[in-house]
This record gives sequence, C-alpha cells and structure tokens, in this order.
Amino acid sequence: MLAGTPAHAFWPHCAKNRFRTHARRIYSPLAFAFRLFTCTGSTLFKYLVLPVVLLGAYQAAHADEGQWQPHQLPQLKSELKRIGITMPAEKLADLSKHPMSAMVSLGGCSASFVSPDGLVVTNHHCGYAAIQRNSTPEHNYILNGFLAKTRAAELPGGPSTLVYVTEKVENVTDRVLKGLPATLSGKERHEQVESRVKALIAECETDKAYRCSVPAFHRGLEYYRIKQLMIRDVRLVYAPSDMIGNFGGDIDNYEWPRQTGDFSFLRAYVGKDGRPADPSPDNVPYKSKDFLVVSAEGLKNGDPILLAGYPGRTSRYKLPSEIRYARDTDFPLKAASITADLSVIAAATMGNANSSVRYASVAKSLNNVLKKTQGLMDGFARKDVAAIKDVQDAEFRAWYKANGAAGSKTLLADLDAVIAADMALAQQEFAFNEATHSDLLKSARTLYRLALERQKPDAQRESGYQERDLSFIKARLTRLEQSFVASVDEARWSAALQRYAKLNAVNHPPGLDAALPPVTSLPAIYKASDLGDTAKRLAWIGKEPEAFRKSDNPFIQLALRLHAAGMALEERRKEVDGNLERVIPQYMTAVIAWKKSQGKPVYPDANSTLRVTFGTVSPYSPRDGLVKGPFSTVDGILEKATTKEPFLVPAALTQAVKEKRFGAFKDPVLGTVPVNFLSSADTTGGNSGSAVMNKRGELVGLNFDSTYESITKDWYFDTAITRAIHVDIRYMLWVMKEVDHADNVMAEMTIKYPKR
Amino acid sequence: MLAGTPAHAFWPHCAKNRFRTHARRIYSPLAFAFRLFTCTGSTLFKYLVLPVVLLGAYQAAHADEGQWQPHQLPQLKSELKRIGITMPAEKLADLSKHPMSAMVSLGGCSASFVSPDGLVVTNHHCGYAAIQRNSTPEHNYILNGFLAKTRAAELPGGPSTLVYVTEKVENVTDRVLKGLPATLSGKERHEQVESRVKALIAECETDKAYRCSVPAFHRGLEYYRIKQLMIRDVRLVYAPSDMIGNFGGDIDNYEWPRQTGDFSFLRAYVGKDGRPADPSPDNVPYKSKDFLVVSAEGLKNGDPILLAGYPGRTSRYKLPSEIRYARDTDFPLKAASITADLSVIAAATMGNANSSVRYASVAKSLNNVLKKTQGLMDGFARKDVAAIKDVQDAEFRAWYKANGAAGSKTLLADLDAVIAADMALAQQEFAFNEATHSDLLKSARTLYRLALERQKPDAQRESGYQERDLSFIKARLTRLEQSFVASVDEARWSAALQRYAKLNAVNHPPGLDAALPPVTSLPAIYKASDLGDTAKRLAWIGKEPEAFRKSDNPFIQLALRLHAAGMALEERRKEVDGNLERVIPQYMTAVIAWKKSQGKPVYPDANSTLRVTFGTVSPYSPRDGLVKGPFSTVDGILEKATTKEPFLVPAALTQAVKEKRFGAFKDPVLGTVPVNFLSSADTTGGNSGSAVMNKRGELVGLNFDSTYESITKDWYFDTAITRAIHVDIRYMLWVMKEVDHADNVMAEMTIKYPKR
Repeated sequence: MLAGTPAHAFWPHCAKNRFRTHARRIYSPLAFAFRLFTCTGSTLFKYLVLPVVLLGAYQAAHADEGQWQPHQLPQLKSELKRIGITMPAEKLADLSKHPMSAMVSLGGCSASFVSPDGLVVTNHHCGYAAIQRNSTPEHNYILNGFLAKTRAAELPGGPSTLVYVTEKVENVTDRVLKGLPATLSGKERHEQVESRVKALIAECETDKAYRCSVPAFHRGLEYYRIKQLMIRDVRLVYAPSDMIGNFGGDIDNYEWPRQTGDFSFLRAYVGKDGRPADPSPDNVPYKSKDFLVVSAEGLKNGDPILLAGYPGRTSRYKLPSEIRYARDTDFPLKAASITADLSVIAAATMGNANSSVRYASVAKSLNNVLKKTQGLMDGFARKDVAAIKDVQDAEFRAWYKANGAAGSKTLLADLDAVIAADMALAQQEFAFNEATHSDLLKSARTLYRLALERQKPDAQRESGYQERDLSFIKARLTRLEQSFVASVDEARWSAALQRYAKLNAVNHPPGLDAALPPVTSLPAIYKASDLGDTAKRLAWIGKEPEAFRKSDNPFIQLALRLHAAGMALEERRKEVDGNLERVIPQYMTAVIAWKKSQGKPVYPDANSTLRVTFGTVSPYSPRDGLVKGPFSTVDGILEKATTKEPFLVPAALTQAVKEKRFGAFKDPVLGTVPVNFLSSADTTGGNSGSAVMNKRGELVGLNFDSTYESITKDWYFDTAITRAIHVDIRYMLWVMKEVDHADNVMAEMTIKYPKR
Repeated sequence: MLAGTPAHAFWPHCAKNRFRTHARRIYSPLAFAFRLFTCTGSTLFKYLVLPVVLLGAYQAAHADEGQWQPHQLPQLKSELKRIGITMPAEKLADLSKHPMSAMVSLGGCSASFVSPDGLVVTNHHCGYAAIQRNSTPEHNYILNGFLAKTRAAELPGGPSTLVYVTEKVENVTDRVLKGLPATLSGKERHEQVESRVKALIAECETDKAYRCSVPAFHRGLEYYRIKQLMIRDVRLVYAPSDMIGNFGGDIDNYEWPRQTGDFSFLRAYVGKDGRPADPSPDNVPYKSKDFLVVSAEGLKNGDPILLAGYPGRTSRYKLPSEIRYARDTDFPLKAASITADLSVIAAATMGNANSSVRYASVAKSLNNVLKKTQGLMDGFARKDVAAIKDVQDAEFRAWYKANGAAGSKTLLADLDAVIAADMALAQQEFAFNEATHSDLLKSARTLYRLALERQKPDAQRESGYQERDLSFIKARLTRLEQSFVASVDEARWSAALQRYAKLNAVNHPPGLDAALPPVTSLPAIYKASDLGDTAKRLAWIGKEPEAFRKSDNPFIQLALRLHAAGMALEERRKEVDGNLERVIPQYMTAVIAWKKSQGKPVYPDANSTLRVTFGTVSPYSPRDGLVKGPFSTVDGILEKATTKEPFLVPAALTQAVKEKRFGAFKDPVLGTVPVNFLSSADTTGGNSGSAVMNKRGELVGLNFDSTYESITKDWYFDTAITRAIHVDIRYMLWVMKEVDHADNVMAEMTIKYPKR
C-alpha cells in the first residue's frame, strides 16, 4: 500500500466503498485481496459508477462530467452559470469558506455539518456501523430506527465511526518530486517517493489530533498534503428504520426506480478543550465552524445541483489496451471467481444459522462487487468503449507527434510498455489472491509481516505497518470474528486453490506453487490451528519474528513459507509502480496540454480527496422507448411494498401516505412527496452521503447510489445515461416529521420552507 | 354458438384474436374449448387489453375510454374537439362516407383500403396466413419477406384470407324482439331470439356475395344487421421479413418498449363483373369506392388520433361478483390448466422435431392466452378493480332504487340471480372442457352433432351447423392435420382427465363422469381410431346418424356416449343465456339512463362490429419513477438486435440505420425514424390492423397490440395506464423505401409528405 493513501483507507467503512483507495487499479488483484480481507465484515456500500447506451427517443439534459478539485472551479465559471448555479465559483474554491467548510469525510463516506453543534448528516448505510453496534434483540434500532430525543440519549458510534474535518490542503509536489532524476524509475523511484511521502505525513501528524495523507493526483503528476482533524467520539443521533433507510435492499442496489430513505444523523463530540478526544461522557458537541442550511423547497426537473464529497477511484484516463484487458480478462475472471466463491459459501453455510449469519455480510459484499462487475461487462458489451478510446487515443497520439516537442520522444512507446507490464503483473496478482483465499492465512501473513516490519525504524517500515497503522490492524484482526467460521473458510480456500490450479501456468507467481499446501492437507491444517480464536490471533501482535519461526501453528508456518513468493510479487509491483509513476505523469502532462489546446480543463481521477461536481436534475433513457426518473415518490413505496424484506414499510409511513399528510413537503408538480431523484452529476464510490446542494449552496438531498447503466462511468463518462441517485431532502424531512417525529433534530437545523 | 355472431367468427384468423366473438364471456369454458379446437393451427394474435397501476411521479395525457358505434360520434363532438380532431363527427358517423367507407374487416382483424384498386393495409400477423401458405424452403417469404413488383406476381392468400366490406348496417331490434313477452325467459326466450336472428341472416344472405350477421348490443338491448361483401380472392402484395414484421416475437408480445414493423399489404380481387368470385387468374382488382390518404408527416407526443376497426369483446359492464369470480376462480383455474397443458406438450414433443413443429403454434397460442391471463391476474392483484366496481355498483343501485320507477322492481335481485347462475354453470363448462380436452374427441363430437343437425331443416339447425357453416367446419377439420400428433393428443387428454378428476365434484357436469373413459383405456382408444387421418375424418361429413351408431371407431363411440351430457350442458347454457338476454338489457337500459343523468353517453361492449375510438399520442408511467413511450425508434432495433430469433435484423435495415438514411421519414424531434408509438385510444382484440388516423382522417399508423399493464382494460378502463401500441406510418414507408424498395406499392398510394 502506498504511503500517501488517506488514512481512512484503513477504515472499517472501506468495504462499503470497495473500489476505493487501496486499489491503484480497479483490477489490481492484490488490492482486491486486501480489500476482501480487510472489509468482509462490514456493511454494504452503494457504489456509484457509470455509462452505457443511447438515447433514441429521448432528449435529456446531459450529464456533466468532472470531479473537480475545488481550486479548479474558477476555470468552470461559464459552465456553472450555464446550468444556473448562482454561487460564485471563487467561493466554492475556498475550503475555508461556506459551503465547502461544512463538508466532512467519514473515511469512506462523505457527509456535511447541518448545525453549529456538530450535527452531521450522511447516508443510512454510512451510519450503519453505529446503528448495528447499538442494536440488541430488545432494542432493535436496525428494524425500529433510533431517535435520541436529548443529547444525553445519543449513542456511541464505536471505533469505526469517525468524522474527518479537512483543515488544510497544501500542494507538496515539489517536496515529493524535487531533485528526482527524470530517468529514475522502477522500484528505486517508487521507494524514494514513498519515503518522502511518509516523511511529509509524519511531519504533519506530530499533533495526534490530526490524520494526514499525501495522495498523488494524475498518478503522480502532483501531490497534495491533506490535514484532517480526526474526531473519534461520534454518536448516533437519529436513523430511520432499515425499512426506510435500506428500502429495496440488495434487490434495488444500483437500480432505478428507487425509493430508499438512505439517511442518518450523527454528532461529533470533542473534549472540553475543543480537541478530539477518546469517547467519554465528559466530551461536548464539536462546534462546527460552518454548516449547511436546509432548503425544504427541493428541486424540480432541470434544476442545477452542486455535489461535494470524497469520491474514491475512477479510471477515466486508461488506455484502450487497459480497457480491453479489464473487459476481456480481468472482469470475467473476477466475476467467475466471485460466483464460484458465493456458491461455496452458500453450500458451506447451508442449514447452519450461525454460519449463515456470519457470512451474510460477506456474501452481500461479494454480491455487490459481482453486480458491479456484471454491470461493467454488460456496459462494455453494449457500448464499445475501447473503440471510442481508440479514436481518442489516436487523436492524442497524432497531436503528441505534432505538438509534443517538449516531451519525451519515447513517451508513447514507454507508456505502452509500462502499461503492458502492469497488466501482465496484475494477472499474477489475481492468481496469488486465489491461491491465498483464506481469512486465517491472510491474518497469519499480516501478523508475520508486521513482526518483520517492526524490526525497522518506524519511518522505514512499509506503509500500512507503521505505528500509525497499528490500531487499524488490530481492529481488522478483531473484527474477523464477526464473519468467520473455520469450516467455511476451509471450503472457500479449498475451492480457490482448485481455481488457482486451473489458471494458465504462466500467470502462477514464481515460487508460489512449491510453497502452497496440497488441497488434501487443508482439513489437517485447519484442525491444528488456533488462529480462529480472536485472543490467540491478537496475541501474535508484538511478537518477534523468531517466535513465528518457532511456531508449529500451520497457518503461521504457511505465512513463512509463502513470504518469499509474496514479497517477490510485491517487489515487482513496486518496480512496475515506479515505472508508472515516472511515465504516467509525463503522459498526463501531455494530455492536459492537448486538452488545453481544445480549451478543456482536465480533472484528475478520483483519489478519495474532496471534489466538487455539478449537473442538473434529469431523467435518462436506458433504452429506446423508456425514460427513467427524475423523481420517485412515496406512492412508489406503497407500490413496491410487500410483507417481506427488503420491501417492508413502517405502518406509520403507509398511513401518512394514505392520509396524504404531505404538508410542506408535497411537490407542487408531482402532488406528493418525492423520495429519490436523479441528477447528471459525476459521482463514484466514496460520494455516498455527499451533500446535494441547490444553486445557492443549500442542502436539498444526499447522494447515495447511481444507476445500473452508469456502472461503466468510472471508465468512460457517457453523458446521455450517467445518473446519480439522491435522496430528496423533502422525503427526509417528511419522514422526520410524519413518521419518526424527530422534531428535536429538525429544530436544530436551519430549514428554509417554500413560500406558497 | 349464437346465430348472429358475425360470420368471420368462424374464420381461421380467429386464433389470432382469441378473446373475440365466440366467447360470450371471457371465462366461458365452452367457448374457450371451441376456440382452442378451432384455432390452434393459426398464428398468434397480438391481443389488446388493459389497465393497472398509478402514475406517481408522472403527469400524462389520460387514455380515452370508449369503443363507439359510429352513429354515436355526434354525441361526442366536444370530446373530439377537445383533443384536436378537426374532422366533423357527423362525417365519421356515416359509414358510406370517407373515411369510414375505407375501413374493412378481414374476419378477426381490421384493415383499410389505401388505393382505388383494392390495396389493403393491415398487420403482418393478420396477413401471416397468406405469407405462410406461399412460403417454401426455396421461397421463404416468412424469412425474406415478399414483394410483388407487378400485379401478376401477387400471390393467392388462400381460403383463410378474406376481405369484408361493410355495405349496410340496419337496426333490427324490433324484428328480433317485437312481441316477445317481457316475462319470456330461459331457453324458450333464447331459442325464439335465435330463430329470428337466423331468419334475418338467411333473408340477407340470399345474395351469396354477402355474409350477414345480427350481433346483439348491450347483451340484447339492441340488434343490428350487418351486411358485408365477402371478397374471397385476396392476394398478398407485400410483406416485410418476419424479422421486421414480427421483431421481438413472443418475448415482446404485450410489451413496451417495442419495435415491431407489424404491417403487410393485400389486394382484393373480384370477378370481371365486379362481384366477389372464387379465386381465379381472370379476376380483377376490386375498385374500392374509398381509400385512406397516407400522411408521412406522422404524429408527435400529444397529437390526437382516431382509430377505426372491429374490436372483438370487452366486459366493461360486469358486476363486482363477476370480477371476483374471474379473478379468484376462473383465471387461476385457466392459468393452471394451460400451464399444465403446456408442460404436457413440451414433454410429449421433446426430442421429436416433427411433433415439435406441429405443436409450435398450439403452444404459442396457449402461451399468449397464459400471458394474457397472467396479466389479468397481475392487474387485478395490483388494483382492486372489484372494489372500484363495488362503489360504482352501489351508486347505481342507490340511483335505481330512487329513480328506476319505470323499470322492474325485481331487476336488481333478478340480475344477481342470473349472474350467479351463469357463474355456476361456467364452472361446469370449464370442467367439461377439461374432460374432453382431445382434438380427436372434439372432431368426433363435431361430426356427430353435424349429422344430427342435418336431420333438421336448415333454418332449425343449431347455429354453427347450418349449410352456411359447412365450409368452415370442413376447413377446421382439415386444418387439424397441421397441429396434431396422436401421441401428443393422448398425453394432453390423459393429463386433462386427471385434472378434471381433481376438480370439485359439484362442478362435474351431471352424467359426464359415467360417460368418460378411464384414463388407462386411452392407449387402446387411440390405437384403434383412424380419425387422425384427414381423409377418414372428412369422410364422416354427410353421413347419417345411423352410421355413427354402427361405427366401432372408439372416438365416434365416445362422441355418442358423451352426447347426452354435452347436450344437457348446452340446454342449461341456453336457459341461462335466455335469462341473461331478458335481464341484462333491462339492466343496461337502467345503466344508460343513470349515465345519461350524469351527461355521459354509454358505448356497448365490443362485439366485433365496427367501432371508432380516439385519444392522443401519450406515454404512461407503469410504476413510480418510470415512464414508457410514447415513441420507439429504429435505433432501438439495433439496440435489441441479437443473432437469434426473434431479435434478428435484416442487414439492409441495419445498414440504413447506421448510415442514417432517414430521408423524409426522420422525426424532427427524435432525429431518427419512429417505429412504434403509444396512444390512449380504447382498443381490444380484433383491432389488430386498425387504421390509426390523424385529426384529418389521414393514415398515420396501424394498431397492433397494447401494453402489459393494459391487459385488465377489457374489464376496467384505467385512464392513467391504458395504452395501445401502433406501428408508425413513417417506419412502414421507410422500410418500403430503404429496406425493401417497394416503390411500386408506394407509388400506388397517395402519400402526403411533410413540408420541411
């Protein structure tokens, strides 16, 4: 893992945001492996992605591509004006000013302050960990929702619920790159960059109240150091029932029509000195310097929106060859692997309630990735994005040959070479992941690696194994108990080893085959190991490498045996990454110059940093003769209602709809309360919970998903069909008023009602 | 079967239009049985039906209920004006004037003249019999389409392709009902009415060029005698490939989005004397007195349309009890029976190409009925139509008690009693149908019945067994060979007998159980019978009853054994029908008076007579957050295209779309050629091929289907979601020009091109 990855990359929410942060490339198998290991116990993230088909019979407002760094917005004044944003671009560019200073990160999710007393609004699924950990059979807050009528009644969010307030963003490109020889490449280059990034982070984190990161932009063309206040006492204030917050569940995930009330409220607490503190009853609400005003007026079709948040990862500048690799090799392999894994889990847990519960969220996560991967394959099958990129790529190359005098003469050849090497390595990384697909084995490998790294001075340790990472590693190793059953883990690994054996031998990482145990030995290995016991697992933290060498625990022994092959792969990854970090920035410099010659600004691929996107409320045509959106309504909830999850509806909600108690939240055109709406804004995973604002910067909704047809958007933004799904503020307020009677929460916010 | 049923009820097209004509009630099992027997060999009809859900987020133009008798149109002047129809209502009311005099019936389908030389345009599926019978492996007109470049090249349509030109419509209510005592009821009443109707028909058919019918309106409140010139030399002029004409096939049946080019052209030929003649090379094109002008301008969203044709059957005036019976008893029974029958057919034909081919169209027909039945059940589950009818019924009853002084005091009680008796009998009829579910048995029963009826003078014979019916009976008994395999018939009957045995014993018709053979005897029965041989089957026509009695053919013997039970059921049907015919007209008289008191005209339920409906081009919302239509486009064809039926696309079409050769047929808003569109007009089965006209009465499309959500419309017209599906004239003309080069057909029509 890169140093410079934002701290919250390690956060428990990461599974919700599974294509984010770690994964340098969406198809990086190691990243994928690590993600599954890290995050399988967490709840699901409604990942946002994108574009496919054609309009045909429908003329729509087009989606607006671009996840802009706030400082870029002044370049886009005319665009903002065109769609009707009245807020000055300069104001939006200033992170210390309203409304940007009201935006926060939850580490994997986005959110915003909505009161001066640290009240934060985000998605229901982003607050889910806090809801879940406080739920008991007697107090089932998942099913019944939760409302603290007083501050004293607010419930602890637990260690995975944090609020990050960005206080400073510095361009540190010079400090990362200065003096690096242009010819420096490979592992050497990668390690020098890593080392400087780690130093920059360490320098920033001298005050332990802060978490710092130095993410690369354009794959290393620029580096910014981001300093975030990390508030670690965050409490649950209000969440509607899962029947509202997760209405439609997995079935409606990525789908439209949608009627999900995906919202919840948290509150940030700090010590009496105003600084972040460990959770304590003595803490006081954080005095947020800024907060969003809520507009109950809502929006109508065609209205402009602004959306600010922390999008995770996009791959918009991939070469055609990379798209073909993803489409033809990586996605099909991944889909087949997950499909097989899901079958194994289903078979291994069948008829056992305990095992089923433990693997429910694992299966949910896998299903989410599978649905996304399937969506990507469907999307690429429907629209030949590679062919579109071929044209763009050819245009660029022609331009570069004619105008790229300042750049390297070998750039285009270098580029093709490093990308080819990257793709070849990725296949071996995928194979490695299959071969080591056991949570116990991964735990053992993490523990052994940690022991080795701890032999070095902290600054020289591999990123992810530094002192700053220790609490996160511990949390992960602890959390495993929630989603682990030895017999299921054994069945999964056994099947994965057999899949690995069938992969083309050239993609088997060197040295790995010899180190792997025969499938037939697995029963004995599991029988002899006590790593499934959390206390025994955690007891390995802090032990010396020597203790590992002497252990007769078969998983610890396996971690040692596999170490050399794993490290060799990692070294080759560093070599490839170092080359990518040398060549891609040159390539992006040329691309930016090329686009500039066309008068077009260029935004960097998403990297979990704060971005602003804008667009309009607009429907789309997923196929000829059909129009989706832009609004769904409370009537649609009753339409979908059944007596089974995920389409249960609270009786109070049904009654309020039937009695038409819509009050101020009735849309004058629809004649009812809008629930979700579509916009053309450019979002991706990590944007969950992002504030959706009207032209004046007032809160009118929360982002929480995007449509199935949008799934390919991380790769290619198809303006005709890319739509993000938002929950309408009027539905949130209506639920608060008519269903949950959360009057105290409403009273705390500044709500502007429509004049009618 | 009622005398007075239009002649074309017997026509081979009937299977395409399976809820038409014969079936007095949609759930009349005997009618259902008869229909299956009669029509299983024919191709599929895209049946039109209707309404279910709610609008939610979508404000649409509402559908326009009413299948009006042309003479009623002057009452609807303001409605016509409101939607923008400029043609005078009085003109539309006159069947001898343009445009109504251009409308023709094909017997089960609707059509219209589009040139002075007898050129007729209708649906592809309505011309299918003509296309199919001329197709050979060498000249596959189904796959490749057919175009006669000269008149001499036009192909014979065969005996099932006829054109009916309505020449006279007389109100003969007096002649049917005059002098019948008000108290006359039951079988006696029914037979007196039948007898008068038969006499009226016989009087009208003295000139054999004509086919006459005396259908009842409002179930016997009024009778009209319709005199139609029956043209029996009808030739195929032009049909596009099945890839165009049946694009989407069964998968898209009842569905939107839709891109089906469901059109074909026929020509009526007559003898040199201008009178209908048997097919002969000496015949000449019929000089149509009137024809429609074609407008290539097309329509846009919101434009008004007029639609004229021959809708088959609706049930709009059913009581709530009848809706509940259909919903809770008839539809589920029927759906279960068809589902089981389809399984039996699948199992019995599996692995046998010959059997599979013979039962392909049977299965297709059954699937169509099943889809419609499923749609009715879905629709009634989504919207409680019975509850809506409860309210209307209660309002009517209250009004009648207060204002119905002129009517019978016992009307409401009488009504409930006759309807209850009808429903009870229908269950036995359903059971009878299950018990006799064998094509060979049905053939034997028809033959024996014919022999018995022929003992009487023609005028006294049962309707359906008169001299005028003989050729149709012969055609049906011949056509059976196309869709019959003894082993499959045996399997179907065997399964049906077992289903029958499981039905509630109170619904077993008296005397039937004792007459039925044991299931175990079926193999021997089939082995010993030669009725599967067409020549031997037909040889029974004209034989005396005595010959039947002496026969040792087991099916003939069975026909004799089952005769008493069948006749008993038929007598009871006549009794019930006679009662219905006495009470329902009184009820409808009261309903009309009630509606008149609200200023609302009342249209009669559809009965295969010429009707006019109107509406606007409009989309609809099948569920919250989703909008369908109103247009589909040629781009949608490429979107759906695969390499498998029914989504194959002719290369010439693909190329024309890709090259954007749209010419005059490009819609200025859509930027491409529209293929299908939705309107709010009120249609049903039988309206296939109906002319869709613009406000000036110019042809702008053909009706061919309605949406799945519309399926309940025959029972209750839900304005929000009822939509008919039409093929756009611009697509037809574009296919003719760019794909099939049918310039000669285009040249024969009068086409108005848009001024642009």
